[in-house]
Amino acid sequence: MFRLKHLPLDTLREHVVMIHELAVRNGNLGLNPLDRVLVSGRDPATGKRREITGVLNFCRDNLLEPDEVGVSDEAFRDLGLAERTEVSAALAVAPHSVDLVRAKLEGVRLDHAGFTAILGDVAARRYSRVELAMFVLACALKRLDLAELVDYTRAMIDTGEQLSFASAPIVDKHCIGGIPGNRTTMIIVPILAALGLTVPKTSSRAITSPAGTADTMGILADVSLSADRIYNVIGKTGGCIVWGGALELAPADDVLITVERPMELDTEAQMVASILAKKKTVGATHVLIDIPVGRTAKVRTYAAAETLAALFHDVATRIDLRLEVALTDARAPIGRGIGPRLEALDVLAVLRGDIDAPQDLREKSLYLTSRILEMSGKVGPGAGYREARRMLDSGAALKKFTDIVSAQGARDLPPEALYRQMVTAQADGRIREIDCWEIARVAKRAGAPANVAAGVRMLKTIGDVVARDEPLFEIHASSSEQLDTARSYAETHPEIITFGF
Amino acid sequence: MFRLKHLPLDTLREHVVMIHELAVRNGNLGLNPLDRVLVSGRDPATGKRREITGVLNFCRDNLLEPDEVGVSDEAFRDLGLAERTEVSAALAVAPHSVDLVRAKLEGVRLDHAGFTAILGDVAARRYSRVELAMFVLACALKRLDLAELVDYTRAMIDTGEQLSFASAPIVDKHCIGGIPGNRTTMIIVPILAALGLTVPKTSSRAITSPAGTADTMGILADVSLSADRIYNVIGKTGGCIVWGGALELAPADDVLITVERPMELDTEAQMVASILAKKKTVGATHVLIDIPVGRTAKVRTYAAAETLAALFHDVATRIDLRLEVALTDARAPIGRGIGPRLEALDVLAVLRGDIDAPQDLREKSLYLTSRILEMSGKVGPGAGYREARRMLDSGAALKKFTDIVSAQGARDLPPEALYRQMVTAQADGRIREIDCWEIARVAKRAGAPANVAAGVRMLKTIGDVVARDEPLFEIHASSSEQLDTARSYAETHPEIITFGF
Repeated sequence: MFRLKHLPLDTLREHVVMIHELAVRNGNLGLNPLDRVLVSGRDPATGKRREITGVLNFCRDNLLEPDEVGVSDEAFRDLGLAERTEVSAALAVAPHSVDLVRAKLEGVRLDHAGFTAILGDVAARRYSRVELAMFVLACALKRLDLAELVDYTRAMIDTGEQLSFASAPIVDKHCIGGIPGNRTTMIIVPILAALGLTVPKTSSRAITSPAGTADTMGILADVSLSADRIYNVIGKTGGCIVWGGALELAPADDVLITVERPMELDTEAQMVASILAKKKTVGATHVLIDIPVGRTAKVRTYAAAETLAALFHDVATRIDLRLEVALTDARAPIGRGIGPRLEALDVLAVLRGDIDAPQDLREKSLYLTSRILEMSGKVGPGAGYREARRMLDSGAALKKFTDIVSAQGARDLPPEALYRQMVTAQADGRIREIDCWEIARVAKRAGAPANVAAGVRMLKTIGDVVARDEPLFEIHASSSEQLDTARSYAETHPEIITFGF
Repeated sequence: MFRLKHLPLDTLREHVVMIHELAVRNGNLGLNPLDRVLVSGRDPATGKRREITGVLNFCRDNLLEPDEVGVSDEAFRDLGLAERTEVSAALAVAPHSVDLVRAKLEGVRLDHAGFTAILGDVAARRYSRVELAMFVLACALKRLDLAELVDYTRAMIDTGEQLSFASAPIVDKHCIGGIPGNRTTMIIVPILAALGLTVPKTSSRAITSPAGTADTMGILADVSLSADRIYNVIGKTGGCIVWGGALELAPADDVLITVERPMELDTEAQMVASILAKKKTVGATHVLIDIPVGRTAKVRTYAAAETLAALFHDVATRIDLRLEVALTDARAPIGRGIGPRLEALDVLAVLRGDIDAPQDLREKSLYLTSRILEMSGKVGPGAGYREARRMLDSGAALKKFTDIVSAQGARDLPPEALYRQMVTAQADGRIREIDCWEIARVAKRAGAPANVAAGVRMLKTIGDVVARDEPLFEIHASSSEQLDTARSYAETHPEIITFGF
């Protein structure tokens, strides 16, 4: 028996268990590093047995005593026992569902029960990273047919909690990403809510980008809300803009993403399942999917976008979700700011109707809102844009946004970044395209999203004529080192902005 | 910049890097847990730049200060810088060779340059576990053709050091495993060396078994020898029996095995490449492969064994290695002991010619030795068995074994396990089969191989007639807990031993 110790380690969605190497030598089981181990013990208060599995690392003194078992943050939370509780540690066998993954690798079809078994174990963190990779690859290589993809999506929904609202329609939107500054959600949600629709919007934090919607909204309000608090905010205002990761909606997806991302494989089917499962679990009935198309976006051609749109439609129909797809232009970032604070300023300018508010962000938001209004039947065909614009121009959307912010818990705007530097044009010309991927890298090097005030403020956009030495964009950073790194990246990559006609 | 700290963590073949979460918040780059990071710094003594990549975990106080970067055992060794050296940590991109892995996943053939690029990065620990899994699965699912398998094997050889001996032939043997107690190596090597052959034998430690040959030999002698010490031992005695893991022979293989094992997939081609690469890197010219065949062994039918044997032959021919395959019987463990110390006693009994030495171990060793003697041309066809037996019965093999042990560094035999318990027959009958897999589990539950004296001592074997309550085997353990665990497993699994005619 061991005493439980919480090690202050954030290992993302992987449970890590540590044992002193002497404990193994002294005869407490034949364990090897990277083995899957079962840690279990009894809660002295309730008498209930609690257990987790995790991946084993060995350590030596000054981390643990030989009679201690250390567990990482999530493992400690999921185990739910106090430190120093008596626990045992034993070699755990692979979950039975891994056999189904092996069968899939050999080409066997999986059904709903199979996906449910697999995703249940995935959500409970019973899969090792290698087994997660096996599952993702099995699905990617042995192509899921439509019936499998639907079963997979349904199983993903079943692994977690679900929100439920009385008033239909429940509307939602999702952008598959890749466009910096694209913060339409924070404008669309208040417009829809101002018109009386229910919009329980969950968003993600940045994974590889300089800001996710949850990061940008997090500048102005608390976004880590429990389900109860979401019900409360929706009850008061009709809408919310929160971080999906704080909830246990489709938790298997949160685990799978940790291996999907580094694989950088074409796992389109899994993306569709993941997005639609998340929409379904927040209770949405009508969803608009925004697919930006452009040379430097995730989807590069309209042909590819249409194939993807068809897949979204096919799965949505079968899980009883009304869905439309909007293909949008991705030749440049949307709005001026890139990075949480700078993007939040853009959103506020549009909501306030400032004279210099970024028009591309305003118009894209109005267009997407109009599609949602019309598909939900809230307004008649062709009437969406006018209604959306009325909410924005009348100040009703701003009022609703302020209500949502204060219901979620308002935050003070953080101060502007201390270090700023202009990047100027190296020649005369007219801007034809801005590389979304590369400009995002400049913002990340400047410190976004970890430093919320860091990022890039675009001064020019597509179609603008600029003279040599005229400022193109301004880098914001909270240290001179980061400013230098970002500036030198920008200066050595002039192809970030393409000139021409 | 950070100060380097060595964290006392054994994370097997994975480099783990830890950074305080405050370091990220304070603006030192946008890193996420599980990112691949590059840690680099300059050796103040030589002025040379040193770097490693590793997988990132976040931690909090009492592990690291915010200005420290912590690295695990192997990462610290490979980085080769002193603690408190100034180092930087930055997001590392995936090695270019991962693109080749993705191409292979899509069915593209790989050539020697491709495999060399991949395995070079694998050996340098530049692949994440997920990328390793992608590579192993790509090879397993998109079947390597023979030319690819040969290129793969050659590339595996090229990633590490190679031993080289002047005197040909250099003979070697390998058993693909799965049979407890099968310690023929420790008998075959001294016989061959006594006859003047060169036998640079490297073996593995137990991975999933109760003892590997390196564990059993490790009871009697030091087995962690450097290449220099191996040359020295071979120079003195002609043979050695060492742990392959202590050398940098085919190091990519040592990394790949960490993901292959938990996958439990049919990766036969990779096994062939791995085994033959190891043989080639020790300089072998003639190799015998022992494939045990049985219902509870790794290879279950003679048909499967013959397919595997053909694959061994095909690859061996193309990398200029003389190879023969012996298909052997696997209906029961070989010898009496299972577990390092108990198996070592069997080997010593055979070498000493004890009257009660296990005959199956003696005969199997003589048979395999005779095949090696004949294939190497050391003796004429049909003369192998007689010569081998002469060496054993004359005491020449024992003498040679003693010389090898003392050249490697002799160790005192550890004391017998304190806790012992007989397991008896539940009915009368004649033993028809002993489940190799299940009896190994009993030995592991008793503590083998971590506790070298733990394991199982078989008292009966195939063909023996036993009466109810007669002892079948004895469990050895160093704690009463482990004894109980093993005994209760044995008692609830009477099917370990099959009775019948």
